[in-house]
Formats: sequence, C-alpha cells, structure tokens
Amino acid sequence: MKGFNHKDLLGMEQLSVSDIELILDTAESMKEISQRDIKKVPTLRGKSIINFFYEPSTRTRASFEMAAKRLSADTISLSSSGTSMTKGETLIDTAKNLQAMNPDLIVLRHSSSGAPHLLASEVRAGIINAGDGTNEHPTQALLDLFTIKEKKGKLQGLKVAIIGDIKHSRVARSNIIGLKKMGAEVTISGPPTMIPMMSGSLGVNVVNNPSEAIKGKDVIMVLRIQLERQSKLLFPTLREYSTYFGISRETLKNTKEGAIIMHPGPINRGVELASDVADGPFSVILEQVTNGVAVRMALLYLLIGGHKSDVMD
Amino acid sequence: MKGFNHKDLLGMEQLSVSDIELILDTAESMKEISQRDIKKVPTLRGKSIINFFYEPSTRTRASFEMAAKRLSADTISLSSSGTSMTKGETLIDTAKNLQAMNPDLIVLRHSSSGAPHLLASEVRAGIINAGDGTNEHPTQALLDLFTIKEKKGKLQGLKVAIIGDIKHSRVARSNIIGLKKMGAEVTISGPPTMIPMMSGSLGVNVVNNPSEAIKGKDVIMVLRIQLERQSKLLFPTLREYSTYFGISRETLKNTKEGAIIMHPGPINRGVELASDVADGPFSVILEQVTNGVAVRMALLYLLIGGHKSDVMD
Amino acid sequence: MKGFNHKDLLGMEQLSVSDIELILDTAESMKEISQRDIKKVPTLRGKSIINFFYEPSTRTRASFEMAAKRLSADTISLSSSGTSMTKGETLIDTAKNLQAMNPDLIVLRHSSSGAPHLLASEVRAGIINAGDGTNEHPTQALLDLFTIKEKKGKLQGLKVAIIGDIKHSRVARSNIIGLKKMGAEVTISGPPTMIPMMSGSLGVNVVNNPSEAIKGKDVIMVLRIQLERQSKLLFPTLREYSTYFGISRETLKNTKEGAIIMHPGPINRGVELASDVADGPFSVILEQVTNGVAVRMALLYLLIGGHKSDVMD
Repeated sequence: MKGFNHKDLLGMEQLSVSDIELILDTAESMKEISQRDIKKVPTLRGKSIINFFYEPSTRTRASFEMAAKRLSADTISLSSSGTSMTKGETLIDTAKNLQAMNPDLIVLRHSSSGAPHLLASEVRAGIINAGDGTNEHPTQALLDLFTIKEKKGKLQGLKVAIIGDIKHSRVARSNIIGLKKMGAEVTISGPPTMIPMMSGSLGVNVVNNPSEAIKGKDVIMVLRIQLERQSKLLFPTLREYSTYFGISRETLKNTKEGAIIMHPGPINRGVELASDVADGPFSVILEQVTNGVAVRMALLYLLIGGHKSDVMD
Repeated sequence: MKGFNHKDLLGMEQLSVSDIELILDTAESMKEISQRDIKKVPTLRGKSIINFFYEPSTRTRASFEMAAKRLSADTISLSSSGTSMTKGETLIDTAKNLQAMNPDLIVLRHSSSGAPHLLASEVRAGIINAGDGTNEHPTQALLDLFTIKEKKGKLQGLKVAIIGDIKHSRVARSNIIGLKKMGAEVTISGPPTMIPMMSGSLGVNVVNNPSEAIKGKDVIMVLRIQLERQSKLLFPTLREYSTYFGISRETLKNTKEGAIIMHPGPINRGVELASDVADGPFSVILEQVTNGVAVRMALLYLLIGGHKSDVMD
Repeated sequence: MKGFNHKDLLGMEQLSVSDIELILDTAESMKEISQRDIKKVPTLRGKSIINFFYEPSTRTRASFEMAAKRLSADTISLSSSGTSMTKGETLIDTAKNLQAMNPDLIVLRHSSSGAPHLLASEVRAGIINAGDGTNEHPTQALLDLFTIKEKKGKLQGLKVAIIGDIKHSRVARSNIIGLKKMGAEVTISGPPTMIPMMSGSLGVNVVNNPSEAIKGKDVIMVLRIQLERQSKLLFPTLREYSTYFGISRETLKNTKEGAIIMHPGPINRGVELASDVADGPFSVILEQVTNGVAVRMALLYLLIGGHKSDVMD
C-alpha cells in the first residue's frame, strides 16, 4: 500500500501526484462515514488537535472540527481574540507553548503567507495549513479536486477556467498547482489588476474576456471578491466588476454541456456570481462543502492516524 | 407509544397538547441523568449538533451544550463574531453550508423573528428555535411548563400571572401560548406601553395593577426588563418601573399560599424583582435552569434520537 | 492512602504540605498519559467541567481543556464576551445559574482577587482558581513546584530567586507561599515600586540588585512584566527595566552551576528575559507548560475523580 510520508500539509506545492491520489482515495471512504446514521468512528480516539484561527472563518473551522469529531479526536479551538496574541507574544512562542501540551496536530489559519511553514519547522506536531495570507489554501484545493473527480470521473485532460482575482487568491494558487500536477489544463481570467504578472510561469492560459475564457471548459471555478482583504479597490465599482466579470446565465451560454460551476464560498451573490447560477443545476458549490469534511477527515487520518483498517469499523 | 412527529421545534404555536405532554414526560427521565454520578448516556453518539447563536447568551448556549454532551452528541458552537457573517453572507447561505456538513440538528438564536422558520424550510437538519427576535423562545416556555408541573402537579386549571414587558418578550409569548394550550388561565400586567394591543386575541386577562394581577395566582412569572433590546425606553426611569411593577415582598402579600415565583434570567436585581424575593422560599428560578438542561435533552432526543429504551441504559 | 480532602483549589494558602505532595505525586502518573500514543483515559467520563475565563488566556485555558479531555470529562468554555456579563448579571448569579446545570467543577479566572473564594462558598461544584486578580494563581505555582522537583529531585532546602514585579504578581505570591511551605528559601528582587512593603512577613529575602539576588541560587524564576495590568507604569521605560532587571547571559554569569531558568509565560522577549536565555540550555520554560497539563489533570482527578486505580487503565 502507498503511504503518506509527510509530517505536515503546507501546500499543494509539497504534494506529489501519488500523494494527491492517496488523499482523494482516502476521502472517498471518509465521505461515506458522514452519511451514516452514526457519523463517528473511533480512529483518532486519544489524539489531540488544536484549531488555531487567526482569521475569522465559519466553514473552514467548522469543517475541521466536524472532521475531527467524526474521527473521535479531541479538539481545542483558539482564535486570535481571547489569546496571548493580545499580550504581544510571537507566533513561534505561542506555537512552542501549544506544542508543549503534546497535541498531535495543529490546524493553522494565518494572515501571513508562510506562517504554517515557520511553525512546521519549529514544532513536532503536524501542521495543516488552513489558509496562509495570499499563499496557499491546500485543503480547499484538495476538496475542489475531489469534487471535480467525483463529477467528471477524472482530472487528467480536463479544461478548467478560474475567474476572478487570481493574483490575491490563495484558493486560485493552490488549485492551479494541484490541477496542473493532476494533468488538467487551466485558463485564468479577471481584470488586469487581478492577473499575476508572471502568469506564464504558472503554466496557465490567460484570457481577458471571461465569456471567452469559459468557452469549452469542463469546470468553471468562480473566485470570491475578497473585499475585506484589499487595501485598495482593484476595480472602480462592484457593479462594474459584476457587469464584466460576474458569472451569470448569460455568460454561461458559451459553456460546454455538463460543465460544473464551483465557488469556494462565501458567495457575494450578484457580484462574482448570479444567484440563479449559484443555485442552478450546474452548481456543485454545496457538494464542495460536503466534500470538505471528507477531505479533511482524510488528511487528519493520513497525518496522524493509525492503520487504514481502523477506518472501516 | 406516542411519537413526536416534528422535524423542528420552531415554537409553542406548532406543538399539540400531546406533543407538549410527551416532551415533559421525556424531560423527567432526562432530569435524572444529570443527577447521576456519571452524567452521560450514549443515546446520541455519532450525532452532530451545531449551536448557532447570533445573540450573546450564557445560559441558553451552555444549557444546550450540556444537554448535548450528556447525551454523547458532538457539538460545534458558532457565534456571529468569528463567522462568515462578517463577510456579508446571507443567513440562508450560511445555513445551507452548515447543512452540507451533514449535521443532525441546528440550534439557532437570532435577533430576527422568523429566522428559524426560514432555515427549517431550507435545510434537512432539524432546527431548534433558541429565541427569535420578539417572536418565540419555546425551550424556555417548555422548561417553565415542566417546572410548574413539577411544583404544582398539573397545568390544567392553574392561574398564572405574567408581569413585565409582555409586548416585546418572546418568553411571554411562548409561555402564553403553551399555558393556554395546557389549560391554564393567564393574567398579564405591565405598563401600558408594554401590553400588546390585541391582548384579547391571546385569550389572556389584562390587569393594570400588578398587585391586583397576582392576587390568587398559583404562579407568578416575572419578566426581565430587556434594557439592551429597547431602542427607546418604554417607561420614564428604572426606579419608576421598579416602584410600580417590581415584585417585592410587599407586593407578594396578596399572593395565594404556595404560589411560586419564576424568572427566565438573567435577573436585574432590584428592578423587576427584589433580591429577597429572587432568593426567597417561593422562588423556583434556579430549578428552572436545572430543568432547562432536562427539557433540552428531551428535545434533542425526540428530534434526532433513536429508541426510547436507549435513554435508560 | 492519603486523601485530598478539599472541595476547591482556591490557593496555595489553603494547601498543607501533604496536599502538595499528593498533587505532585499524582501529576507524575498523569504526565505519562500525555506521552502515550492514545492520550486519553476514561477516568472522568460523565463529569462536566465549565471553564469560565473573564480574562483572556491562551495557555491556561487550553491547558485546562486539554487536561479535561485527556481524562474524558466534558467541558464547556465560557468567556466574558458572549456571556450574560454583558447583560449586567452579578458573578454570583451567573455562578448559581451554572451550578443549576450540575457541573462537577468550575475553573474560574477573574480580574478580582477573591472571586473564586466567593463562588466556592455559594456553589456545590468544586472551584479551581485559574488566577484571581493580584491574589493567587495556584495551578501555576503547583506546576512550577512540579518542574523544580522534577529537575532538582527535591524542594526542601533549595534556594530560589524570583525576579520582577513581585508586588502585583499572583504567580509570585502563589509560588512564595508554596515554596516556603515545601521548605525552600526564597529571595526576591525587582524595582522598589514592585517589591511589596511587608516583604518581611512573607519570610523572603529582598535583594535589590538582581545579579546579587541570583547568586548561588538553584532556581531563577523570572516574572512577566504585566504591561496590560498596570494602570500606570512602575518604571520609567521598558529599556530601563530591561537594562537593570532583565535577565541576560551576562546576568547569569553569577549563577550556580545547574541553576534552572523559569518563566510563567508569555515572555516579553528582550524585556524581562533575553531571547538566548529563554531558549538556552538552562531554560525549563516549555517543560513548565507540559507539566501544566499534568498538574491540572491531577487536580481535576483529585477534586472530582473516582478511585486512583482508574487512572492506570
């Protein structure tokens, strides 16, 4: 059996193709657990997981907590308010202190790119990057890959369009790395201020016009406009963004039959995505959330779990 | 055996007399669990409950968490700070996202009347209304009914006075509906600005003078002055409220022997209730809190539990 | 077998020498549990613990939660934001309400000295003082005693220097009481504004010059400068504090061989303690954190646990 030989999950960058395949396969068995009447297996009983979120988050934190509890792990949740952060301690000191309590895993969301990598080298516990600055959000990319594979049966050879603020999106970055590794073809589109300068080196196609960009694609991934993360607006008004880059039924007329619509949530309805598309028949947005729990269960299991057979009991 | 055929607990409005009887009977066996040395049964093992509180609350949230843990359910607590709410997502989108994680039950407290009803129609999980705006607070009414029945042996035919801001109190509303259904007679009293215009349609007696209102009553329910929920004061000063509508030993001279004093908490001591009455021999205020855990255990069990026999092990 | 005959842990003041010995011995077996692969024993299954923190804290709250979960107790965490405190309820009313939910133990951190003592007399549940104003922080002192004994093999006859704001530090107060009870000799040093007036009555030596104070000592305990707890600064500038009272490699030249450096955390690096000392070979700061979980497990067990044999399974 293939093994998962990582202490941490820092980014898609660090994963091999067979790592990704192993994660997606494991997530498949995990998904089934959440559909049972008794949604709990004893696999990670006696393991301690600390959820450490420096940025607010409902779904990611809830998803990790749910994943941990369904595997019977103990969880402790810390947020930046109500912590020593208000007492001026450094991130590494806080992490070393948490490590001293012998957790098996620390799930970290942080506004600084590279924060989880710093921690990973300083603590014995495994680190899962739950989003670091504008760098990576690997568990989101993995749940997106899982969802695509579930809907399309494969990743190899698929054509994927990503629309929005590619430049500042850790979701986009992790997805581009992951999709390329798995043999998909990626096209990006967004206002010029939101397209990375060195897009060429990412191995993606850049198409300015979003209607053009989605033509013939199997997957259309719409990014959230991160209003709260921009120090200055990258486009004149929301209405203009919505008019030119918002995905509506109209835009989708050019799409290949059977194309799926994805969004990492939370959606700004009527801005980057029209409501009838978000709730429409091609949207797999809520399935992404369901799969998020499964993928996170898989990662908890692969990083700190025992033997695969435990999962099945 | 009678069954409980509801997906949700939205309000006293939706419950039949036999529903209420079933809840109160079930709560009785649940109460005994909290008095054991080992206060835990495996009844809801593997069930996931999300506590979603948009308004601050110590006792209600703690009571629901305690109830869930004593039945071995997994709980996740979300509050409006630290959630996607700060990212502008709608309530329904948040709820659908939570639903996608396959919880069995969502306990919701929200400042808008009707929020739980909206959710209930949109998600598969059961919804428990833990207080919605000025509409209902059914778990409070049920614990009040349980406490009255425990003390008085019955509900049918009892005379109950409710004193305070009837108009804006979801506790009053739920209690009036519940008490009337169970055959009790309800008298309300409060400043004219706090009495609903259509009191007649509620089937209650209105008596302006609180000393008159409590005369001959079996139960005196004193409401909390919700200072934080009033945009403008409904009476000139707190001192005036306290002088005319505050319940003191003096006021209670007119009461029937054996009448009990109830309050949903937290108490504004010296405003709506004198300290010596709150702590006095006729007060059942802390027993209401104890019964709150039992009634919530009963509701969790009836909405998502398995077979009644499980409770007994 | 010696027993622990206390309902509460309010302070070192209330503990006898044999109480302290029993806690330290019990903590030794508890420490081993946190080093297992499956870090969990069923000892406190079905017990309910409420963590009630009125002051922000990462490590103490996380340490108590971890301790409770490793003993299989159920925990509920409340903080002052998001509680009825914002509704103006008194501490005793909140406590009585929590008591009504039948918890076995309440862990309280509060900014007022004596708050836990007040609670202890009003509620049936055991109370653990997790820090009250400038009074005591007994679990910190017990983990410090445990760490010293672990490193030095004994407490009797040891020489301990405590450097910093002795006057306003609950950590210092609890440690002085505990160390004296166990037969250690305590020397304190700090700016005149930070030395208690009646130091004589504490039975400690006062030495103004910190370099002198640490000469020949087995243990050097450096206190945190509590910038957030001082209404006015007790010294002109941080730089001056650091120059005269900060512990650096230079200061340590006078130390006895094998002396250990302790700090309750979080460290203000470069203020009360130089980074190379904090991270140096004589620092036991992170071991204090590890031992904190063990000592808290011991206290939970001794206050509400069953039979000692349970711990071993």
